[in-house]
Amino acid sequence: MALNNRQWVIAARPTNRMLLDGDFTWTQAEARAPGDGEVLLRTLYLSFDPSQKGQMENVGGYAAPLHVGDVMRSGGLAEVVESNDPSLKPGDKVSGSVGWQEYPTMRARDVQKLADDELLVENLGALGGTGMTAYFGLSKLGKPFPGDTVVITGAAGATGSVAGQIARIAGCRVIGIAGGPEKCAWLTEELGFDAAVDYKSENVGKAVRALAPKGIDVLWDNVGGEQLNDLLAQISLYARVVICGGISRYAAEEMPAGPQNYFNLVFKRATMHGLLVLDYLAEFPMARARIAEWIREGRISTRADIQEGLENAPKTLIRLFTGANIGKQLLKV
Amino acid sequence: MALNNRQWVIAARPTNRMLLDGDFTWTQAEARAPGDGEVLLRTLYLSFDPSQKGQMENVGGYAAPLHVGDVMRSGGLAEVVESNDPSLKPGDKVSGSVGWQEYPTMRARDVQKLADDELLVENLGALGGTGMTAYFGLSKLGKPFPGDTVVITGAAGATGSVAGQIARIAGCRVIGIAGGPEKCAWLTEELGFDAAVDYKSENVGKAVRALAPKGIDVLWDNVGGEQLNDLLAQISLYARVVICGGISRYAAEEMPAGPQNYFNLVFKRATMHGLLVLDYLAEFPMARARIAEWIREGRISTRADIQEGLENAPKTLIRLFTGANIGKQLLKV
Repeated sequence: MALNNRQWVIAARPTNRMLLDGDFTWTQAEARAPGDGEVLLRTLYLSFDPSQKGQMENVGGYAAPLHVGDVMRSGGLAEVVESNDPSLKPGDKVSGSVGWQEYPTMRARDVQKLADDELLVENLGALGGTGMTAYFGLSKLGKPFPGDTVVITGAAGATGSVAGQIARIAGCRVIGIAGGPEKCAWLTEELGFDAAVDYKSENVGKAVRALAPKGIDVLWDNVGGEQLNDLLAQISLYARVVICGGISRYAAEEMPAGPQNYFNLVFKRATMHGLLVLDYLAEFPMARARIAEWIREGRISTRADIQEGLENAPKTLIRLFTGANIGKQLLKV
Repeated sequence: MALNNRQWVIAARPTNRMLLDGDFTWTQAEARAPGDGEVLLRTLYLSFDPSQKGQMENVGGYAAPLHVGDVMRSGGLAEVVESNDPSLKPGDKVSGSVGWQEYPTMRARDVQKLADDELLVENLGALGGTGMTAYFGLSKLGKPFPGDTVVITGAAGATGSVAGQIARIAGCRVIGIAGGPEKCAWLTEELGFDAAVDYKSENVGKAVRALAPKGIDVLWDNVGGEQLNDLLAQISLYARVVICGGISRYAAEEMPAGPQNYFNLVFKRATMHGLLVLDYLAEFPMARARIAEWIREGRISTRADIQEGLENAPKTLIRLFTGANIGKQLLKV
């Protein structure tokens, strides 16, 4: 009996514009029976990340390109329905690049078997790509040191919120920039950030100058544009600037201006790093174990914004670009 | 008998505009007799560097500020006329921050005694601040490796020309960007650069793409603005971008746009460093010895553009901002 595999395929590339519902087509296919070494999966959760828009546009060549007509690529959690590989059996939980579909068929070696424990969904957040990005962006590039002042833009997002908490564990003073009082309250009251700045109601440059008069030692940027430029003016001697994302660029019809204050890197002998987490794949298990321990100890809190229903996948992805989500954006299929 | 000490003092700060002759006043004072531990010097050569304009503007706070009425600060070579310190005697040659004046009086510990050999004037160029900048910018930040492609903007300047030659010694393929056929010919025919691009007659982005289809491993930027932005689009995986200067910014009435392509640092997991050479002061003697050996071996060629007459100091400094100089800009007093 073939299963009906509902899915979203890409209808258009959202280049230099906002992502639209109409960039995807809601369709279905017959689920494919697993061949040798393959498994048939049922998708449980999908994970959302701003870089998915970049993959649709195929910018920068940093991921395999997606094409119009492809099932939309996405990480997710799934349950094994049928297995043709000795390493997995029906009922096992796995994570992998399942895509926006109900019944993906994948090679067993392309998925990761998960312990069915209380941190299951964390595999898409703090224990998944976003948590790894926070961990390695700090450990390899930002290099927080006790007493440092760390400023994080997009701080209430999945990566920023974990990065800020790790910087706190590292003994730093952490200031988060986020949009709106609810996000800011979450940062300071639940995550233990030392301060939060609401970019919607405050002048970011001025607020950070008051909070960090000695300058920013580690600047973690998820936003780009004006926030990045204003904060580059306030870096301290030997500062490390980690470019993790640039949400102001992804949705823009017109690309925001480049940061004129890049030249402050010279005056401050500072360094600006680009970050792509897959470079550290070999060290993921160690990082995952540390973050899992911090979560269990209550030193890292996470929050997921969980939407429901595969039919809402495009709308859920768009939430990332309107700043609607707090914490990790997920969809329960 | 007191000596007449002709000098240039600062008349105005050239903030956000071209430097002008009228920013200096030509005046004189009585040379001051050396006190205990001091020497009276006669200036032989002055050294010119774009950062002197920044010092007059007091931007970035990275050097002690200069004020209107101060004698213009400048490195130079001088001869001891009278000494009140046992370490120096009349006739000794020294280098130090002599300023735009004929007869500076300085503390003996603030000058460096020089061997009176055939590389004397090199102490203001390849063996001075510009050579040190080239050496440490590469050894500490650019990290050239055999087979790397190195692109240098402002390549016919004092720092760029030495950086390119060191990169060649390091086994790299070196492409220089410079203005005009004379500078480009000097780079390829005399300095051994693998290629040169004339930004005045060629499209830099297009020319470099043809010369370095696999991308730029080390980008050494003295220029900023459009050249930096175009070249950032062509960095390779794990590229190192060294920001040494930004000549397009120094003379600008309106600051050039920031580099929108900074985000390519993410796609390429690259790093952009700000460089200030004084951080490596402790290692200068070692670097000086190596560069001196390379010069004697003929592996590094240098060229000085030597103007004459202290009265021409302002005009000589302005040459740096109009691209008039090839190699190190000096003035014989």
